Amino acid sequence: MTKPAKHVFICGQNRGPGHPRGSCSQSGAPAVWEEFAFEFQQRNLNGQFALTNTGCLGPCNGPHVLVYPEGVMYAKVSKGDVKTIIEEHLLGDTPVARLQLPAEIWG
Amino acid sequence: MTKPAKHVFICGQNRGPGHPRGSCSQSGAPAVWEEFAFEFQQRNLNGQFALTNTGCLGPCNGPHVLVYPEGVMYAKVSKGDVKTIIEEHLLGDTPVARLQLPAEIWG
Repeated sequence: MTKPAKHVFICGQNRGPGHPRGSCSQSGAPAVWEEFAFEFQQRNLNGQFALTNTGCLGPCNGPHVLVYPEGVMYAKVSKGDVKTIIEEHLLGDTPVARLQLPAEIWG
Repeated sequence: MTKPAKHVFICGQNRGPGHPRGSCSQSGAPAVWEEFAFEFQQRNLNGQFALTNTGCLGPCNGPHVLVYPEGVMYAKVSKGDVKTIIEEHLLGDTPVARLQLPAEIWG
């Protein structure tokens, strides 16, 4: 275990189906988690980067993925977005603008 | 919800009593979480700083508290250490050296 170059936090909050506020787990977060874990293993990224599941991150417009040290908060992330985040942000050091929460919510 | 100046992640992993690897929840993490939440409320720090519970953070020498954007990992945090972390690190911007994991583990 070493300090990761980037640390990816994935919300796993689950309020059950039909809850008025929704929750990341009901919006597809488990598939996003599995895809990150699969890609980290396939590309041998564990160690360089870290992956951690969390409770509620706040905005509840998920699935949310939060990347530090930049503090970039992604919203409505799908399984198909995971490779893009890995390639452009984690490996390319350029956050994916189209997936970020607007600055008035997280800025 | 705005992007916090500092984001405090507290491990809540629970492997049950007697597990050979231990776990933060069995080592006192719930009391650490409660103390952070209490102090954040008392000092009106919510908004400026964020508090999030997590799954396993890796080193398993907890309770672990991880503060970003610095990426400072604290180990064996007690309820009594919480005010120190808030005052010295969050408000004073000086991480608490005596509570940090050694650089060979998280450096």
